[in-house]
Amino acid sequence: MAQDAEQRARPEGRALTRVRYPETDRMGIAHHAHYLVWFELARTEWMREMGIPYLELEERDQTFLPVVEVGVAYHAPARYDDVVRISASLGWLRRVRMKLDYSVRRERDGLLLATGFTVHAAVDGQGKPRRLPPRLVRGLVGAAGELR
Amino acid sequence: MAQDAEQRARPEGRALTRVRYPETDRMGIAHHAHYLVWFELARTEWMREMGIPYLELEERDQTFLPVVEVGVAYHAPARYDDVVRISASLGWLRRVRMKLDYSVRRERDGLLLATGFTVHAAVDGQGKPRRLPPRLVRGLVGAAGELR
Amino acid sequence: MAQDAEQRARPEGRALTRVRYPETDRMGIAHHAHYLVWFELARTEWMREMGIPYLELEERDQTFLPVVEVGVAYHAPARYDDVVRISASLGWLRRVRMKLDYSVRRERDGLLLATGFTVHAAVDGQGKPRRLPPRLVRGLVGAAGELR
Amino acid sequence: MAQDAEQRARPEGRALTRVRYPETDRMGIAHHAHYLVWFELARTEWMREMGIPYLELEERDQTFLPVVEVGVAYHAPARYDDVVRISASLGWLRRVRMKLDYSVRRERDGLLLATGFTVHAAVDGQGKPRRLPPRLVRGLVGAAGELR
Repeated sequence: MAQDAEQRARPEGRALTRVRYPETDRMGIAHHAHYLVWFELARTEWMREMGIPYLELEERDQTFLPVVEVGVAYHAPARYDDVVRISASLGWLRRVRMKLDYSVRRERDGLLLATGFTVHAAVDGQGKPRRLPPRLVRGLVGAAGELR
Repeated sequence: MAQDAEQRARPEGRALTRVRYPETDRMGIAHHAHYLVWFELARTEWMREMGIPYLELEERDQTFLPVVEVGVAYHAPARYDDVVRISASLGWLRRVRMKLDYSVRRERDGLLLATGFTVHAAVDGQGKPRRLPPRLVRGLVGAAGELR
Repeated sequence: MAQDAEQRARPEGRALTRVRYPETDRMGIAHHAHYLVWFELARTEWMREMGIPYLELEERDQTFLPVVEVGVAYHAPARYDDVVRISASLGWLRRVRMKLDYSVRRERDGLLLATGFTVHAAVDGQGKPRRLPPRLVRGLVGAAGELR
Repeated sequence: MAQDAEQRARPEGRALTRVRYPETDRMGIAHHAHYLVWFELARTEWMREMGIPYLELEERDQTFLPVVEVGVAYHAPARYDDVVRISASLGWLRRVRMKLDYSVRRERDGLLLATGFTVHAAVDGQGKPRRLPPRLVRGLVGAAGELR
């Protein structure tokens, strides 16, 4: 049913950034390490839209989300001054871990530049595992999501 | 047989680096994106030891080795001023692609910080696939390697 | 006279950016090297508004503007997730060099974080000095500027 | 007298680094922001040689040395894979501030690539000014220096 489909619809995080001169290398393209930084832009914008700025999660909830695994497949190069659109969506959620999936596209024509993922552990200020904050879980799954 | 084992022994590339202040983030640990840069240190030192500086590959052979895929699993954080040892070894070789595997260890006690891989395409100056240079293949496989 | 003042009014370039997690260091503040990258954002946005994207200057006019001198005074720290506003204005212009002045302010309250400058040489693809492109000079000085 | 000259001889900090691929930009040269990171290498190696690792200064003495001013003049470009030698020496010392001077040279031929300086404030963990640690002052001025 449409209602079900809507309930299962996953929210997404999005960010736009323009490739900076120092992000390029002598090959004339954005160095592959910067994609991890771009993933972070989409991830944090998404959390901001959920009403849970990552800064607040760290400072108020003393919950940190370090990256414990990452993967990227590079399909086409991004060049200096290209505007790239990064999308983040939920891969999976466990009690103390979550996986996010990403795509990076060139804004002017939608060309797929890269796809990837990050796995995050939830830890406290001392690095001990802790449960993912319920309000983050709700945000990731979406207003009508199945985990509520 | 021992001889066979030796012939199949894979060479390795190694690099040491000390975690720089700007490589740390507000969590007090090396940001995860820098590991991709560290992988590059081990990869290029290895090529230098083979007698094939990557610069020469680009400038003389017009062969570039862009990263087309990367994966990292982070096991323990690296902190400011830690000396880390990065090792690179051959994953697999194809005509126009190669995979390298990496480990990153804290030098003072050998603690495993991360493992990962990169897959590289061999391309010419216009981005067209080209065969991996035979001398690079020989270097990666080792003096007594099976692909000679 | 008011008209003269208006004619001498210097145009400005502006950019907004949010402090990225990897731009912070273990002191919890944006590392001082990133301000040079932020200056670049204001400089290139200004050129884009003038109708002279820096990319075009390099690719069509074969004119490059490497930084030959830089100075920054840091007044207050920028922190993770702060939105900072960077302004660029013309310091001086010579035949083959130009100086730009910058200020970096925290967007939410206007707090002055840093001031600085860059001096650029105009060079061709081989690094030989060349005259600053007239259209860039016109753009920098402004529509009613005195150098037209 | 020779003895006096020797007593006034200023110690120096030194570091070697090789220009990393992601430190280059599409102009094919090391991006100008990275020189600030290289300055930091010479500064921290110097402190390590003095027996005062910067990490220890922060963690044991709760003394931080944020950069409050920086200046760089770029004389010649550094290119990928160049080994650069960075030297740091004392500019001046005040109760709560110090200035360090730097030069960056290409190792293979001594070509001067850049000169520059950093001014540091000494602050505690809350950012309040505090006196430069006496042992750091002694180290900067040298074993036979005039401030002992």
